[in-house]
Amino acid sequence: MMDGLTLDLDQATNGWGNVCHCWTILITRLEIQVKSTNLYATQTGYGSSHPFPVPVICSLTEAKNRSLLSDVYRRKMVKEASETMTLETVRNSLNEQENTIIYSLIDRANYPLNPKMYDESASLIPGFDGSLVKFMVMETEAVHAKCGRYENPEELPFFPGNLPSSLVPSQEYPNILHLTASSINMNESIWDFYFQKLLPLISAPGEDGNYAKCAASDLNCLQALSRRIHYGKFVAEIKFIETPRDYEPEIRSQNSSSLMKLLTFEDVEETVKRRVEKKAAVYGQRVSLVEAEPGQKPKIDPAVISRLYDEWVMPLTKKVEVEYLLGRLD
Amino acid sequence: MMDGLTLDLDQATNGWGNVCHCWTILITRLEIQVKSTNLYATQTGYGSSHPFPVPVICSLTEAKNRSLLSDVYRRKMVKEASETMTLETVRNSLNEQENTIIYSLIDRANYPLNPKMYDESASLIPGFDGSLVKFMVMETEAVHAKCGRYENPEELPFFPGNLPSSLVPSQEYPNILHLTASSINMNESIWDFYFQKLLPLISAPGEDGNYAKCAASDLNCLQALSRRIHYGKFVAEIKFIETPRDYEPEIRSQNSSSLMKLLTFEDVEETVKRRVEKKAAVYGQRVSLVEAEPGQKPKIDPAVISRLYDEWVMPLTKKVEVEYLLGRLD
Repeated sequence: MMDGLTLDLDQATNGWGNVCHCWTILITRLEIQVKSTNLYATQTGYGSSHPFPVPVICSLTEAKNRSLLSDVYRRKMVKEASETMTLETVRNSLNEQENTIIYSLIDRANYPLNPKMYDESASLIPGFDGSLVKFMVMETEAVHAKCGRYENPEELPFFPGNLPSSLVPSQEYPNILHLTASSINMNESIWDFYFQKLLPLISAPGEDGNYAKCAASDLNCLQALSRRIHYGKFVAEIKFIETPRDYEPEIRSQNSSSLMKLLTFEDVEETVKRRVEKKAAVYGQRVSLVEAEPGQKPKIDPAVISRLYDEWVMPLTKKVEVEYLLGRLD
Repeated sequence: MMDGLTLDLDQATNGWGNVCHCWTILITRLEIQVKSTNLYATQTGYGSSHPFPVPVICSLTEAKNRSLLSDVYRRKMVKEASETMTLETVRNSLNEQENTIIYSLIDRANYPLNPKMYDESASLIPGFDGSLVKFMVMETEAVHAKCGRYENPEELPFFPGNLPSSLVPSQEYPNILHLTASSINMNESIWDFYFQKLLPLISAPGEDGNYAKCAASDLNCLQALSRRIHYGKFVAEIKFIETPRDYEPEIRSQNSSSLMKLLTFEDVEETVKRRVEKKAAVYGQRVSLVEAEPGQKPKIDPAVISRLYDEWVMPLTKKVEVEYLLGRLD
């Protein structure tokens, strides 16, 4: 069946010869039938049991002008990604990223607030216009850029201006994202809530002068949060691919609030909040060989981690998803 | 009594006026009696219940020529440190540092081995003589140096040559260490065991090309291990101050193996190994809201963490302690 299909499409697509190879990817989630130059597709798997509202039935010419076939063509270029990134792998990654966020915040909680580090007017770095932490983040991001960090579509710098180019040979990162993804960067909002709202909840007041180490710890937290929040692009892409017909009308009418509603699942959000709270309690516990004294406080308040997800991580992720979808058909 | 003592000493020391103020520190662990220009001291507390083998009784002139009084004089300069750093605070810090090491290794275990990053001949950075990870560490250490990281006696760079000076205003870090401390840097050994022995035990084989992130994760692990191992300097100083008479003969005869024996407490080492193994099991567990399936593997093998301490962390820490003590009376 596959061979016949490949042949049919190859002949039929007339100049879109590359397209035919893509069905080997798409076939994992679409059941394709080709009659003459028409294609019939119904969804079968790909991490979801919901079928398309109606099967896709159209001519190949028509399909070429629709997002479905342009998706297919793009997917050819990112075969590896399509094969490795599914809703399940994305969910697993988000789950792993929760751990990284919690570990890094627990590490940051080892230091006091060190507010002088964030004070733009403290002039801790002579000749530099900004706080010590800004200096540290900018300079470290330059090092990471040289080592190719921002070639990876999962990573976004906090200070993208004037970053040096990567020196390492180009990596072929799996990238299933639409081009619109590159214009979305919420790091300014992440920076603001992190320093203004979150830090005072996890760090004791005071200064210990360990600025370099403490700023490096801040950067670890910022990078972990940034990656998690911008992962919304992948979530949105996969949701869109799953049920494009749900999203297309709202995208065409650029209806942000409808998209936000489509992307909001309160029960899932409640589950995430409870899970990260549990993780913070487990990973932040003080472990010793003797039985812990009852009432001993964990290194970080688990309720703060739940609040972090409730007030900042999940709302910003959904904002990323909405922005991505708004540009998804451009 | 204290006032009288201060006055007596002040008058008696003749030009060593500063010394007298130090007794306010020493008095927390020595009971001082002054008769005329003689001083009588017996140890009282300071984290240990063992008294001096014989009480210190000598003239102040004699005392000035002995390590006891030169300690006292030095302590005047680092009053804050002597007040805040005790065997208990050092132990607490070592305990906290275990967590940092385990969290950072769990993070590193998220990536495959990425051996190309460590390959000196891979030439991933054109024009740079060394591996990508060496480039990343050198460049990041330069950023940290500008932010004052290595002003802190607890921190040591892996590539100390040509580091830029700190740009931030000098911090007064508590430092109870003898000058000999500055010549001890085991980072080369740490680098070797980390990349050659430890990494293959915690990371899956393979390459994912996430070199910048992975090298940043390596640096977090290296820095945490380096701080922990070089904390041996503080441990040695405090042990020496507790019972100088135990160490002095071995130091004077430069007897490394006797010092090593004095510093080795097998039962304590067994306890540490069991504790870090337990921590790795707790912090590395996969947390979900449903009951975990039995037999689910933690993110990092707890036995590897026990082995890390047994084979590398504790032996290198003791090597640091011995080296420090060998130079302690210089």
